Amino acid sequence: MLTRIDHIGIACTDLDATAAFYRTTYGFEVFHTEVNEEQGVREAMLRINGTDDGGASWIQLLQPLDADSPVGKWLAKNGEGVHHIAFGTADVEADAETARQAGVRVLYDTPRAGSMGSRITFLHPKDCHGVLTELVTAVPPKAVEGASGH
Amino acid sequence: MLTRIDHIGIACTDLDATAAFYRTTYGFEVFHTEVNEEQGVREAMLRINGTDDGGASWIQLLQPLDADSPVGKWLAKNGEGVHHIAFGTADVEADAETARQAGVRVLYDTPRAGSMGSRITFLHPKDCHGVLTELVTAVPPKAVEGASGH
Repeated sequence: MLTRIDHIGIACTDLDATAAFYRTTYGFEVFHTEVNEEQGVREAMLRINGTDDGGASWIQLLQPLDADSPVGKWLAKNGEGVHHIAFGTADVEADAETARQAGVRVLYDTPRAGSMGSRITFLHPKDCHGVLTELVTAVPPKAVEGASGH
Repeated sequence: MLTRIDHIGIACTDLDATAAFYRTTYGFEVFHTEVNEEQGVREAMLRINGTDDGGASWIQLLQPLDADSPVGKWLAKNGEGVHHIAFGTADVEADAETARQAGVRVLYDTPRAGSMGSRITFLHPKDCHGVLTELVTAVPPKAVEGASGH
């Protein structure tokens, strides 16, 4: 069951400048940064609020590692902006299967590594009214606190 | 101070079909619908989770009332997808002023009427790394419960 808006993924050309914009304009601080080679991105996670399922909602800023990566190609076509949205669940496999049963193409056969140790998959935007949609099972917050270093 | 992701605004061509997709695929139910003539949209609010500031996070589905409305023009150019994101605050005027001071163009001189009695303004996407960004002061949840009828 999907129990929260986990994050909004925003593609940008300069991660540091975009993070500085979010800090200066809104007061949102970077909680965590990492490179995800498989996804081809450098990313910054800004924690916005806690959620009533015990998780949190984030802004995820994404800078492509190179122009040929999926986010790199997306940026070249669309310019900076919202790249995807993500819903949080305790069981990403179960919710991916529910989506499959509803006729939605799931991009991975099994979940892959997302931000901060999470496990993720994506649903095809053409099957989701134009919205690239991610499903996320996050690592429990206490484990993230122990592991985070930014 | 911005204290939550209030909603993700998604533009669609058929509000009922898109709401049915969100119900079937994810289990998200429509909590409220309304027409906002000033914004030129018919909209459906899907409540996703509660937030630790006492508010909630929503998916907002938007169908333009006509092709010449801002969302109608946006849809013709971009197709269905994420139209804007919104952050919640107890004081939309104060946060709009903070954004102004940071050099961001605020689209309204004073806040206008948003979903479910909220007061809203928008920040220019060209000043926000490509993201049309709304600031929202919601009506307290108990008042919304009393007023909602869908």
